[in-house]
Formats: sequence, structure tokens, C-alpha cells
Amino acid sequence: MSQTFSDRSAHRAWLATQAALPAGFRAGTTTFDFTPREAPKPARMTLTLLALDRPTADFAALFTRNAFPGAPVLVGRKRLNEPALGAVIINNKISNVCAPGGIEAAERVCAATAALLGFSATQVLPCSTGVIGWSLPTDAMIAALPQAVAALDATSILPAAEGIVTTDLFPKVRRAPADRGSIVGIAKGAGMIEPNLATMLVYLLTDVAVPRRELRAMLARAVDASFNAISVDSETSTSDTVVLLSSGAVPCGDLGGFERGLHQVCRELAGDIVRNGEGVRHVIRVRVSNAASLGLARALGKAVVNAPLFKCAVAGNDPNVGRLIQAIGKHVGAHAPGTNLSNLRATLGGIEIFSRGAFQLSPDKETALVAHLREAQLYASAAPRDGVFTAPIDYPPHDRCVELEIDVGNGAATATVLGGDLTHEYVSENADYRS
Amino acid sequence: MSQTFSDRSAHRAWLATQAALPAGFRAGTTTFDFTPREAPKPARMTLTLLALDRPTADFAALFTRNAFPGAPVLVGRKRLNEPALGAVIINNKISNVCAPGGIEAAERVCAATAALLGFSATQVLPCSTGVIGWSLPTDAMIAALPQAVAALDATSILPAAEGIVTTDLFPKVRRAPADRGSIVGIAKGAGMIEPNLATMLVYLLTDVAVPRRELRAMLARAVDASFNAISVDSETSTSDTVVLLSSGAVPCGDLGGFERGLHQVCRELAGDIVRNGEGVRHVIRVRVSNAASLGLARALGKAVVNAPLFKCAVAGNDPNVGRLIQAIGKHVGAHAPGTNLSNLRATLGGIEIFSRGAFQLSPDKETALVAHLREAQLYASAAPRDGVFTAPIDYPPHDRCVELEIDVGNGAATATVLGGDLTHEYVSENADYRS
Repeated sequence: MSQTFSDRSAHRAWLATQAALPAGFRAGTTTFDFTPREAPKPARMTLTLLALDRPTADFAALFTRNAFPGAPVLVGRKRLNEPALGAVIINNKISNVCAPGGIEAAERVCAATAALLGFSATQVLPCSTGVIGWSLPTDAMIAALPQAVAALDATSILPAAEGIVTTDLFPKVRRAPADRGSIVGIAKGAGMIEPNLATMLVYLLTDVAVPRRELRAMLARAVDASFNAISVDSETSTSDTVVLLSSGAVPCGDLGGFERGLHQVCRELAGDIVRNGEGVRHVIRVRVSNAASLGLARALGKAVVNAPLFKCAVAGNDPNVGRLIQAIGKHVGAHAPGTNLSNLRATLGGIEIFSRGAFQLSPDKETALVAHLREAQLYASAAPRDGVFTAPIDYPPHDRCVELEIDVGNGAATATVLGGDLTHEYVSENADYRS
Repeated sequence: MSQTFSDRSAHRAWLATQAALPAGFRAGTTTFDFTPREAPKPARMTLTLLALDRPTADFAALFTRNAFPGAPVLVGRKRLNEPALGAVIINNKISNVCAPGGIEAAERVCAATAALLGFSATQVLPCSTGVIGWSLPTDAMIAALPQAVAALDATSILPAAEGIVTTDLFPKVRRAPADRGSIVGIAKGAGMIEPNLATMLVYLLTDVAVPRRELRAMLARAVDASFNAISVDSETSTSDTVVLLSSGAVPCGDLGGFERGLHQVCRELAGDIVRNGEGVRHVIRVRVSNAASLGLARALGKAVVNAPLFKCAVAGNDPNVGRLIQAIGKHVGAHAPGTNLSNLRATLGGIEIFSRGAFQLSPDKETALVAHLREAQLYASAAPRDGVFTAPIDYPPHDRCVELEIDVGNGAATATVLGGDLTHEYVSENADYRS
């Protein structure tokens, strides 16, 4: 699922291959400085443009279920009813959520983008990510748009993948062959990640001609099995957006093959987001099996990866499995009381830790469990003496996981959930994010 | 609600006054070393005994709703049906949760305690707190019991308040006059705190003769308004227990007066637990008003104090109010979709930050919000260079809070929830709790 590289240049070479744009798309990006209306200090924004050669009827999008959705989400939902979409304009730094005049600001940026591309304003989808509460610097954005258009390039999506990030450590690009064409996807997101029907910002581009109706059904299924099964910090963003665009340059011969490729790209991008989660030093993979329902299986996995005490223990390579059972019991006690847990069996790193209603522990097992946690570390974990955390030198992270198996033993449903540990880096990054 | 002291000696004097035992009770404690069966290193355990002069029919207890309750909780639930209770035996260090033979171990300790006090085994309630998964050192505990009995004293509950702690920074003792007698309560708990019907370990002793039936109804109401309205880290313990014992030494003249005293002690102990929460440097008080239901009001308050991104921002004195709105929207989107939020109004430190669907922010407000967060700090907040955190010197903490008001504007229900920020200390304390 993931790749390991000896150094950054090997990773760059792999990224360049991944990032080749499917036929019919161009991508470009530009950066400028401005002063937010609500803050005293200047800031820097990157504008990223994804454009089709011709507007397409075949597009799909899913948005956050947060009850305070951003203005771009509100505009994006309307775009779903439009006959065609031609471009996506994305900014970082400010998420345009509940800011006065936010919808008008998003529509102004769309109209200016459309004018430069020769499209109509309703053919442009706006997306924003960053600080919640501040207003978009609309005039500065419109002034910078011509540079973004001038930067449009038909070869690589990598500049766009790098342009949409905020606190991300590395760009996230994944591709898969799909039928006779390909799918390439990019994602941003490192914190405020527990998607509910969609995740931060994900763009999936394909040259395969799949009709709108099938495209939307496939996207819903792929997102449910990927972005909806991860959590970095249990927070559901106000801006979560997944967009899938087909240029239709390649006729479709095999819908099933296309859907398999779509699932692969979504699954791999979801894994990248967790591996790059804010402060994440261990990815925790929970496979829940034999649960009474898919909903319960997913919820138990989420309960484990969202339990701060268990997350802290993993961060410290401390196999405090009591906290694992506590997290499961907390969820069942609060949300599924009456569930029979007497057959529950749990393993960590393949080692049985709980069965027949009781822990199965010993000093020898403790040693083996510590070794499993240490091996699953993404990077060496230590609080820096000066409080300043930097990106790891063994970039990009490998795909080792803390492997948990929870066999509930009273049903047939199975789910796999990915999450991260809770580290000093997460606290440092979020205790003063805006300064 | 809370007290501020110039130094530790003033606090000790206040504690001594608070800790006077009501008539009819004795308390004692003893400490010993042992080696846990599941771990290679020796450990230290404190045994604490609360004893009535004579077993009483008038007792009440509430226990965790975690679906993996500890053995003492299972035994304690049975005790509720017994005609009388004469003593509570409490150990720290090991919580006796899902350990093989856990119930038998708890019953053996009860029987040995009863024999020393001249009671029957079913008149003793067992409680345990500490590491989940390990087994009680039953033989060593029984060998230490005579010292605990020898230490029984009718004057002060303070040694017991100090004996039941694990990661707590200070003993928690509160008293209130109640009718013609008094209620004194002690609590332990600093992490794994989001009680569901009861909290970690709380013991409430009164000399007022209130019949069992009224006692139990009053305890349920008092707990719901106090311990069920706090969260340190969203974790529901497997051992949560609240016990209320009446010695009946003072006849009851005013049930209402007694209940007011009970509420006061529970509310103050709940506040103490949050102020002493693991790593807590800001207490966050959220008053939710005009919600459609009490359940939604409470849930919105909990959603805010359990949102890791908002908790981190508070830790850094960063008024990132976007994360506050995100947390409310996440809860409503996932659990109460369709709720009308268009009238929602929010203030932080009395300053309006959100109304009429939009943020109300400015550089001047930002400065004032930062000042409010700084003033609400319990202690100076800085990551220590050596990674080692120590108790604050201005012990005990004062009662300043980060004050949030959320007027939902579409109902009549009100709730107040207390929680804490998320700091480096929490991560440090829990990344290697057992070592």
C-alpha cells in the first residue's frame, strides 16, 4: 500500500511518476502575501487551479457533514446540480467558514476564474482550507489569478499537490491504472481529520469516460471504505471535500476495473493522510471482525483510535492494553449497551492480549508488545528540548503500523480503521497554530 | 466554589477543617510494596479503609457504564441488594479489571476486612483503581489489612483522601453542612475522566439519617448534575464508583436541606477533579443555554471540552474560536442533523465571537481574548526543557476558568460542563504511565 524510499531524491522521482496528469487536465499554482482582516500580522496564501480542457458533465463531489459547513461547501453543493464543471479553484490559509459575506466572496473568485478560462462562473468549484473564522482576501486573490492561469501545465499535478497543503509534511499523490486510462488523486489534511462522508480536500482526476450517475455512486462507495475509515484527531472539518472529475478522453470499457482503481487511489491517499497526521509517530491499524453490524465494527475501531489515553500510550511505546479494553467498553457501554462481549478476543502485533473475558498478560508478552510498538514507529520519538519539532529526516514515512485485531465474536461484520498516536508534536502544533 | 491560598500551609489548615469526619465513621490507611504478576518491576500499593461504627441500611452507590466494568464494580452492584453496609476497602495501583479471578480476589479481600472488623463479608464494599489488566496481590493485601485497621481514626478523612490517589496532584476533600449534620466527601481521579453515571472513586459520608430510598434518588440527581457534567479526556473509566454512606447518628429534619448540601459537595468535588485533571492548565467552563433539550445542551458542552484541537488552542492561550464552532458543528452534523443553528450566539470571556451565522472578530477582540485565556491559566504554561513536569508551586490551583457561553437560541434547556485543556503534561504523563 505504501512505499519506502532511501532518500528524498528517490521519493521525488516516484512522486513525479505518480503525478502525471490524465489526458484533458491542466494544473497550476501561485503564491502571494496579504494581511487578514481579522489579524494584525501578514500571511501567505497559495492559489491552486485544476482545469479541464473542456467542462465535463461527469463529475462527483462529497462534502462534510459538519453542521457549520464552509461557504465553499455550500457553493459546491449547488454546483452538483449544474450541467457541467470546468475547473476547481483552491486556496489555503483561510477556510472561509462562517465569515461574513463568505458565499459572495467564493462566488466572486469563481467568476474571476471562469472569465480567465472562458467558462461560466457556475462551472467553477471553489475550495478553501486554513483558519476558520477569517475572511477571504478576495481582491488579492483575484489579482493573483492570472499567474495561476499562466502556470497551468498539462504534465504534472505535483505543483497542485504541494500548493494545497497547510500543516502537511509532504504532498500526497496517488495514481492507479483504471480500465484503459488512469486515475490520479491528490489530498491535503493533517489535523481536524475524522471525515464524515468526505475528507479535507481530495481531488481525483481521470481520463476514463464514466457517466455522472455511475461516477457519483462509485465515489460514495470508495470514500466510505477509505476516508470515512480514518481519524487523526476525531475532529470533523468544516471544509471536507472530495471531488472526482472525468475528462472523458478515454472511452470506458470496464466499469468494475475503473472502480477498483478508484478504491485503490482513495485507500492509498487515506493512508497517506494518517501517516502525515499532525504529530503522528505511529499509525494504528485496527481490524474489527465478527461484529454484529458494519456500523458497530467501524465505531469500535474509531473508539480505539480516538481514545486519547490509548493514543498516548502508543506514542510512548507503552503497551497499556488496559486502555484498549477501556475504550471498547466505553463505546459499548454508552452506545451499544447489551452487546455480548464475552467472546471478544484481541491481539496486538499478533499477540493475544484478551480472551474469554480476561486479560492474557505476562512479563514475556509485555517485552514482545513493546518491541512491536517500537518497530511500528514512523520516526524516533522524543520531545525536543527546545520545544521545536521538525519534519523527520527519513521522509517519507514507511507503512509500518501498530496492528490491532479485535474479534468481537458475535456477528459477521468486518471493518478496518486507521488512526494515529497522540504526541507532543500534536500539542505543539495546535497550541499555537495561527502564530 | 473553590478556594485560593497563599501557600501550602494555609491549604493544609483548610483541608484539616474540611476533613473532619461525621459522627459514626472512622478512616485509616496503610502502604506496602509488592511485585505485580504481569510486570517485572516492584510496585507500591496503598490500602484505605472507611468504616462505620455499625453497619447501615442507608447507603447508595453508582457505578460506571463502561461495558467492561472492573471486578469491584460487579461485586459492588451485588452489595446494593444487601440489607446493610459496614465498610469500604479501597486499593490504588491496580484496578482489578478483567483480570483472571478478579471477583474471587475482591471477595477474599472483603472477607478478610470483615473478619477484622467483626462484620460479615457482604457488608464490605471493595474498590480498586490503577492499572487495568493486572491482578490484585491478594495475599499481600490481606497481610497489610491489620495495619489499616490499626490506623482507623474517628477524627479526619484526610489520610484516606491522600491514600486513594494515583496520578492526582492533591487530595480532594469537600464538606457541606446538611440539615443538622454534615456531609464530607473525598474523590480521586485525574485521567480517564468522562464519567457516565458516576465518576472514578468518590466517597460521601454523612451523619444525617436519610433512608436508603431517598438517599439513592438524591445521589442519582446530584451525580447527574456534577460528575456527569465533567470531562478531562473523554475517557470513561472501568472503575467509576460513587458511594454515599449515612451513619444515621443525627436525625434528619429537612430532606431538602440535606440534598442541597449533597449537591454542593458533589459539585465542588467534580470541580476539584477537573482542576486536578492530568496536565490541565486551563479549566474550561461551557454554559450552554436555550438548547432544545437537556441532552443536547450537555452534549454540546461535552463536544467543546472534548475537542482536541480546541483544547490545544486553549493550552497555548490561542483564541482559535474557529475550532470551537467546528466542534459544535461536528456534533450537530453527526448526532443532531437538522438542528437550527442560525440563532446561535457564542461568547468567550464575555466577548461576542459568533452571532447571526457568522464570526464577529477583529484584531482588538483577538487581543482581549488572548488576555482572557492568560488570566484563566492555572499555572504558567511552558514545556519543561527536560521533559519532566512537576506539581505547580501555587498549589492548590485557583478557580479561574475559561468562560464560554453558547446560546443555541432554539429551546429552553441549559447545562454547564467543565473540562480541561490538552497539554504536553497530559501526553508526558500518559505516554509512559506505568514505567
